[in-house]
Amino acid sequence: MVGNAIDEAKLENGFDHEEEEEERGDKNGGEYGMSVEQMFEGRQVPSWGNQLTMRALGVSFVLSVLFSFIVMKLNLTTGIIPSLNVSAGLLGFFFVKTWTKLLQKSGILGQPFTRQENTVIQTCVVASSGIAFSGGFGSYLFGMSERIAKQSGDDGGFKNPSLGWIIGFLFVVSFLGLFSVVPLRKIMIIDFKLTYPSGTATAHLINSFHTPQGAKLAKKQVKTLGKFFSFSFLWGFFQWFFTAGDDCGFASFPTFGLKAYENRFYFDFSSTYVGVGMICPYIINISVLLGGILSWGLMWPLIEKREGDWYPAGLSPSNMHGIQGYKVFIAIAMILGDGLYNFVKVLIKTLTGLFYQLRGRQTLPIANQQSPDASDKLSYDDQRRTELFLKDRIPTWFSVAGYVTIASISTIVLPHIFHQLKWYYVLVIYIFAPILAFCNAYGAGLTDWSLASTYGKLAIFTIGAWAGQNGGVLAGLIACGVMMNIVSTASDLMQDFKTGYLTLTSPRSMFVSQVIGTAMGCIVSPCVFWLFYKAFNDLGLPESQYPAPFATVYRNMSILGVQGFSSLPRECLMLCYVFFGAAILMNFTKDMLDKKWGAFVPLPMAMAIPFYLGSYFAIDMCVGSLILFVWQKLNREKADAFSAAVASGLICGDGIWTLPSSILALFGVQPPICMKFLSRGANVRVDNFLTT
Amino acid sequence: MVGNAIDEAKLENGFDHEEEEEERGDKNGGEYGMSVEQMFEGRQVPSWGNQLTMRALGVSFVLSVLFSFIVMKLNLTTGIIPSLNVSAGLLGFFFVKTWTKLLQKSGILGQPFTRQENTVIQTCVVASSGIAFSGGFGSYLFGMSERIAKQSGDDGGFKNPSLGWIIGFLFVVSFLGLFSVVPLRKIMIIDFKLTYPSGTATAHLINSFHTPQGAKLAKKQVKTLGKFFSFSFLWGFFQWFFTAGDDCGFASFPTFGLKAYENRFYFDFSSTYVGVGMICPYIINISVLLGGILSWGLMWPLIEKREGDWYPAGLSPSNMHGIQGYKVFIAIAMILGDGLYNFVKVLIKTLTGLFYQLRGRQTLPIANQQSPDASDKLSYDDQRRTELFLKDRIPTWFSVAGYVTIASISTIVLPHIFHQLKWYYVLVIYIFAPILAFCNAYGAGLTDWSLASTYGKLAIFTIGAWAGQNGGVLAGLIACGVMMNIVSTASDLMQDFKTGYLTLTSPRSMFVSQVIGTAMGCIVSPCVFWLFYKAFNDLGLPESQYPAPFATVYRNMSILGVQGFSSLPRECLMLCYVFFGAAILMNFTKDMLDKKWGAFVPLPMAMAIPFYLGSYFAIDMCVGSLILFVWQKLNREKADAFSAAVASGLICGDGIWTLPSSILALFGVQPPICMKFLSRGANVRVDNFLTT
Repeated sequence: MVGNAIDEAKLENGFDHEEEEEERGDKNGGEYGMSVEQMFEGRQVPSWGNQLTMRALGVSFVLSVLFSFIVMKLNLTTGIIPSLNVSAGLLGFFFVKTWTKLLQKSGILGQPFTRQENTVIQTCVVASSGIAFSGGFGSYLFGMSERIAKQSGDDGGFKNPSLGWIIGFLFVVSFLGLFSVVPLRKIMIIDFKLTYPSGTATAHLINSFHTPQGAKLAKKQVKTLGKFFSFSFLWGFFQWFFTAGDDCGFASFPTFGLKAYENRFYFDFSSTYVGVGMICPYIINISVLLGGILSWGLMWPLIEKREGDWYPAGLSPSNMHGIQGYKVFIAIAMILGDGLYNFVKVLIKTLTGLFYQLRGRQTLPIANQQSPDASDKLSYDDQRRTELFLKDRIPTWFSVAGYVTIASISTIVLPHIFHQLKWYYVLVIYIFAPILAFCNAYGAGLTDWSLASTYGKLAIFTIGAWAGQNGGVLAGLIACGVMMNIVSTASDLMQDFKTGYLTLTSPRSMFVSQVIGTAMGCIVSPCVFWLFYKAFNDLGLPESQYPAPFATVYRNMSILGVQGFSSLPRECLMLCYVFFGAAILMNFTKDMLDKKWGAFVPLPMAMAIPFYLGSYFAIDMCVGSLILFVWQKLNREKADAFSAAVASGLICGDGIWTLPSSILALFGVQPPICMKFLSRGANVRVDNFLTT
Repeated sequence: MVGNAIDEAKLENGFDHEEEEEERGDKNGGEYGMSVEQMFEGRQVPSWGNQLTMRALGVSFVLSVLFSFIVMKLNLTTGIIPSLNVSAGLLGFFFVKTWTKLLQKSGILGQPFTRQENTVIQTCVVASSGIAFSGGFGSYLFGMSERIAKQSGDDGGFKNPSLGWIIGFLFVVSFLGLFSVVPLRKIMIIDFKLTYPSGTATAHLINSFHTPQGAKLAKKQVKTLGKFFSFSFLWGFFQWFFTAGDDCGFASFPTFGLKAYENRFYFDFSSTYVGVGMICPYIINISVLLGGILSWGLMWPLIEKREGDWYPAGLSPSNMHGIQGYKVFIAIAMILGDGLYNFVKVLIKTLTGLFYQLRGRQTLPIANQQSPDASDKLSYDDQRRTELFLKDRIPTWFSVAGYVTIASISTIVLPHIFHQLKWYYVLVIYIFAPILAFCNAYGAGLTDWSLASTYGKLAIFTIGAWAGQNGGVLAGLIACGVMMNIVSTASDLMQDFKTGYLTLTSPRSMFVSQVIGTAMGCIVSPCVFWLFYKAFNDLGLPESQYPAPFATVYRNMSILGVQGFSSLPRECLMLCYVFFGAAILMNFTKDMLDKKWGAFVPLPMAMAIPFYLGSYFAIDMCVGSLILFVWQKLNREKADAFSAAVASGLICGDGIWTLPSSILALFGVQPPICMKFLSRGANVRVDNFLTT
């Protein structure tokens, strides 16, 4: 199942496992026979209060801002977000190590850097940057804005983003997921022994950093990351100078010619997506490219020939009743087909798993149980981990009381922020949410696949239909937000608990760190979004630098939920059915084929994204894949050890460049040069124009 | 003296020696104590006829075409030509090795590939591609054309290039150098034991290729060369697509902003000059950059402020009575100052050396004698080499008869081609030429520095002044051509004889190979030039892709010789004196300081080139230097072994791309896209223009 998880758009980590396997092989090779906790036996585990150091929170804050920028940029460009766990782990390690080294040199040595502290940082950063995704800045929240409403051409009302209500909204909905899963942590982690592949991988990474050899490798990785970070940042800076105007600069480079450029086939020199391509499994990158070729290379040109027949001629390119409608709704159909299939699949697995668990059987017949915890007798590691995991308790009454309190506040406050959302909609969501949150956390534990956005879509359609024409479009979107926040946080945090369990971090310090991280995220993410929103006036427009594709997709789902299929252009519904079916069929084929051949079936979700956006980022990602592929051929060992660092460096450097770039835009500093691409004919005309 | 040799523009190889030293250390490390010829003792030396195989001539022809393209491109862009001996050696080795391997596989094994055969190829290619330089396609010959005459604004007449007369001209003048030095080979090589650093280096390279370890390294180097060759070729191809129009494409990339671009400071992404920068010693690249900063950054902007005062306002940018005059004549002053200093210096060395030689002393007190041949007793190597060098004789009467015959034909034919050139001018040149050829060959043997273009300038001024207003401009240019061909060939070929001596190649096969190579060059070079001339209509214009800077410089020297200083704009003569003096002073300072500090004094000749052209190629070359510098810091050994291969690959790939590119231009296939760089303001206007 690993590596399948592309959703709009959290890639729960498709590569850590393999990478991790190698790492462990590398490092523990010399100490085989010695378990992880035996190696760490000499080191004292700090009390939970001492795990939460000020420096950890300081570093977490810095990294939160960094990752919020990155996630926001990804949200607003394509919506594909790779797992940044490894970057967070590496950078957290780097910051605190530098810090302690500096203190050591100046003579004031604080307490040494422990893996528990590292886990706390990791957890806090994940909680905080998770908000940048689940806050829906690239999807439901921005989908409510006037700009997107205009593009969709509906009259379902709008609510423009504003710093005040976004922060308020996030604060009343983001903590619920936390409280809803805290009581379940013992059941999930110790009793059910769920795998949580991402959490496990991160734990192994952190553990490995704190062994002597691991620290050495980590240092090298950090150095590599730093090198590519600087390169990527400087490249972003250099590119900026040549972007004075639309269609200027490297991002509009018609690498394969002008005709291909018009159909959005070009390499846009984005180091972010080259990095993303290096992290994502090959099949995702290939799927994206296939989707792009199928849609922009074949379908759209064919449909455009029917202009005036299937849909009125002369519409603006962003009009939903024209070609844009086909692009958006066929993509939605594929995403929904994929989502539905996986929802049903994970639900069946969840229920079967639960059924076996409750009948007292230790092994899960369906889940692939790779973890060593599955042995009947408790190993030394497990004993020690369980002991420490159960030491610092968080009383159940506390979490129940917390959930009820926040839910009540939220039920009262939300209808005041969004008058389309009645209080009883919220109440209904909050009654069902813990069940869905449990489902999602359990499913993620088995498959590493968070279905947050699928649950969100469920909310869009149910609440949207319930509210109907009476503000249903907005109500659906907000309901989606409420739902997504809960279920997404639930699975994220259970992953973190697994990490904490494997690194002997106290659940109490984890919980506090998660609360602090979430609070940080509720403030940092809106501010980062606000910066983008104010700095780039064309945010959300289809051809701009930040098209925010899923904002349009989500809004149109909501419209679909309210208005039904009447709003679609001709034959569009037919095509939607075909692609909805195809998505289910592809998934089914993938699962039916054996692992070897199934790996070659493309992923419908990944194929759907370029339907709307075009293939330029697919080219970037395939370039990333190609680099990784060649690197692995040349030096497998080195590629496995450093590719994640290279990719993280590329992503982080370009991501952090958006900070100065948006500040420059905010202050009205514009780039001086336009690198323009003209056809020969146009160039002659322009030269004549410029000389006269 | 090594590494100083930049002239317009043959860099007699500034790096081979160091590189070679390393190579020998590498390869012979295991066999220390064993001399080179002892290692080769088991291998039979083929008879002179068997050294001249058909395959060697075939490979030579292919390489001749390749190198003619490269040299022609360099001639016509900046006039800086690095030593391509190593590339020729590597590629020759590669071609014949592939050939023999193929034959071996197919069962028809011809004779094995020997170092003598390799030397024959090397010699033939050097002779042939030497014509591309001494033919003056970028200097005196093209300086006679109408296009350059118009730019110089004189009425000295013109003679446009035409395939017929160029080939005829080359045939009657190119063989003279050959015959003039052949009788001297024993004196120079065996009696005087001159060093000929380039020839020695090439011989070591070829010898090393044919030892087993050497062949292994050579194979790796060839692979590296091939990789960078392909990259460079494909990069040239990719760039082509974006050059539909003037100031389009990567070659016009305002890397440091538009203001800097206007003053010709930009990185033009030319892999050729990055490669050239890697081959040239650091001090040359720094000198070029310094010259660019001094001229385009400081002097020209200051002089341009005097427009309307020092020179009339509103002149066209290529008018010699305006700013262009300052650029050209100050550059000429510096080149002449440098040339004069070195002429006097080499002449003094030559005469002192001769004096000591004739007094029967074995060692030369002035020349740095590094060669092992300097020992009083003849070593085994020397014995064997001398024996084989003297075995196949070329009778002196043959060369004297050859010289007289060709000189007579030439004296009769030349005035028919150029009616400005009287027969007695030619006769005078041919009487003095053998002496100057001897001087040049002897000087090059001591210092590795061919002063061909300095002797050429001497001819320009003397014959130009003699002919006076009566066609003196053209007469001077042709006289320069006649002189340059003789003296340049003389030194080139004596270098080759040294190579032959050290690789046990028969002088007779060398001579035949040189004759064949020269004949090839007389046909190939004009054809290559013709392709460029027909394909690029703006060839020779100052702002074009191929400005052919030295064509203008040479013509203006000739005008100066005829008209005196009256044609110069105000204060220009003053500035010329200053820079003429500065060039002499800098050279003098360099020689007076010890080696360590002298290495930091820039080279006037290198500084003068950007005076006319701007700094863009200086940026490229410094990028090449930087790459080499960083590489050497990271891995000295690898950098020394492979930098020459990388640089050769970059130069050759881009050079050979000019073949398809000029063919495309010839057939009227134009690139489809213009990558244009506009200021923000201009971009807004253009966007408005294009949308309306």
